[in-house]
Amino acid sequence: MTTDNLPGLGEFGRIATYFRPLAAGFPGALSLTDDAATILPPAGHELVVTTDAIVAGVHFLPGDPPGDIARKALRVNLSDLAAKGARPLAYTLTLALNRDTPDAWLADFAAGLAGDQAQYGIHLAGGDSVSTAGPIWISVTAFGLVEVGRMVRRAGAKAGDSVYVTGTIGDAALGLAVAQGRLEASEDDRALLLGRYRVPQPRSAFAATVGAFAHAAIDVSDGMAADFAHLCRASRVSGQIEVGKVPLSQAVRRAVDAEPERLQEVLSGGDDYVILLAAAPETASRLHSAAGAAGILLTEIGSIGGTSQNGESVLRDSGGLPLALTRAGWTHS
Amino acid sequence: MTTDNLPGLGEFGRIATYFRPLAAGFPGALSLTDDAATILPPAGHELVVTTDAIVAGVHFLPGDPPGDIARKALRVNLSDLAAKGARPLAYTLTLALNRDTPDAWLADFAAGLAGDQAQYGIHLAGGDSVSTAGPIWISVTAFGLVEVGRMVRRAGAKAGDSVYVTGTIGDAALGLAVAQGRLEASEDDRALLLGRYRVPQPRSAFAATVGAFAHAAIDVSDGMAADFAHLCRASRVSGQIEVGKVPLSQAVRRAVDAEPERLQEVLSGGDDYVILLAAAPETASRLHSAAGAAGILLTEIGSIGGTSQNGESVLRDSGGLPLALTRAGWTHS
Repeated sequence: MTTDNLPGLGEFGRIATYFRPLAAGFPGALSLTDDAATILPPAGHELVVTTDAIVAGVHFLPGDPPGDIARKALRVNLSDLAAKGARPLAYTLTLALNRDTPDAWLADFAAGLAGDQAQYGIHLAGGDSVSTAGPIWISVTAFGLVEVGRMVRRAGAKAGDSVYVTGTIGDAALGLAVAQGRLEASEDDRALLLGRYRVPQPRSAFAATVGAFAHAAIDVSDGMAADFAHLCRASRVSGQIEVGKVPLSQAVRRAVDAEPERLQEVLSGGDDYVILLAAAPETASRLHSAAGAAGILLTEIGSIGGTSQNGESVLRDSGGLPLALTRAGWTHS
Repeated sequence: MTTDNLPGLGEFGRIATYFRPLAAGFPGALSLTDDAATILPPAGHELVVTTDAIVAGVHFLPGDPPGDIARKALRVNLSDLAAKGARPLAYTLTLALNRDTPDAWLADFAAGLAGDQAQYGIHLAGGDSVSTAGPIWISVTAFGLVEVGRMVRRAGAKAGDSVYVTGTIGDAALGLAVAQGRLEASEDDRALLLGRYRVPQPRSAFAATVGAFAHAAIDVSDGMAADFAHLCRASRVSGQIEVGKVPLSQAVRRAVDAEPERLQEVLSGGDDYVILLAAAPETASRLHSAAGAAGILLTEIGSIGGTSQNGESVLRDSGGLPLALTRAGWTHS
């Protein structure tokens, strides 16, 4: 931890009060009393390292509850670890706050982290704190563990694989629309969609299954259509998703039924933080039973065709016709 | 790498053009084509992990050359690794730019990183890119290697140790004063001081020596007085620095001679990015010869007294009288 001239408790007081307890479970953090932490993967394991930042006004709204902001900062990274089949280990945190951020905000923020640390089995290893006159932001680098050579990659999908997604698609994108006043919905639907935007639900409980069975996987953060394209391109395969099979929450279903052009936002909106994976059809029953045991919705939504140097990916409607994304939305191409 | 809607080449084009080449030397980066990187320390080694961010208007000036901003972002982290006795390995980079940042700025920024990667033997392992409407910022998490259990800590200074510093103190603090129009100096002095503020000089070439001989060490980033206090507190020892022995560049010497009250800024101003270390007096000649071989100025500036539960540290003038920092500057206490 380095220091900055923030008011209130002061930097050292803030570290001691709010952040030192978060490092208690990770000896390599040295109680945040040094310039650096040490990390040693257990024998036979290597680290999976991912880093994602969130910025006020872009990835969260300045008035969001501090605990939710903390959870989102951590969970967008936990989601990457889960998609790679990695077990959470530790994270570093860089926090950029305005000079007038009250200590109470920090207390709520740290409480959000503490709750997630307990839930996901991860610990704070170190960090930095800076002040900014602009939008506040949080940058997290997260460390997970896999057996050496066993990280699940985007590349690796094979001809004939089935394509699955964990959870529903589009809730967060429509949650942002709600937050920005671009979508009207019932109070219950608003609450659900906003909640999904504010607090992602990383599938950490499914990481070991992904590691055991997935040929390839990706965290859906840029939108399902784009991330499926990434997976197909990295794997050099063609792939298709049947839009009619993509699982939608009741709230998203209602919004799409009311305005069918919303489907574009749902399929390409991003912030889903679910796992898209490709696995051999023979492992379907084992995947489904593992998902059931973990309480995770797992849906087969498509398939991998053959090898394809450019990695073509298509979304097809219920009649099997390809859809293409245009400025006007998804249309038959 | 995740994506954001930045103009110009676009996120994918920017990664491919500017950042993928920086990851070429680190296989675990997977050419930045996946959600995460893998890191496996060689047998008998563990990772030293540090994270430091820099923000426009706080740690650098918005008009600074992009290559210098890149170097500072990386070097403030390299400095931490060096102080811990760690050899640089890899880093992750999160870059928050304004939407109108031109590709040419990024090209210069990446060139700055490329030069430092070659100089310090470190490689890009992954990153994130976001847009901000506020001051731009760069967050780096750096990974170094030490033999297991051999990271040099702040804690560990022993009674009777000598205290050393690598390089001169106060150049960067007065460089900031120059940049902010608070210090007048000759053109040569201005250039030297500004250069030290903009581009730290991490003592990576001295890291192995620190690892071999230092009982305790700290990266001087918060100011020499504060960081010496951190070292004494963590080590639970009393310590003293003789201000007259603290090495000053000619430029700083001239500024202090002209305005003696500048000494406070010099001793507590921060951004020095040199190493303050404590080592047994018996190892003095080996330390000095290693420093000489590495072309590093190493100066003995103080000593560790005895154990002290609160870790008292003092700065003494040439007559041996203690100086205390007050609002008015350093005074006899």
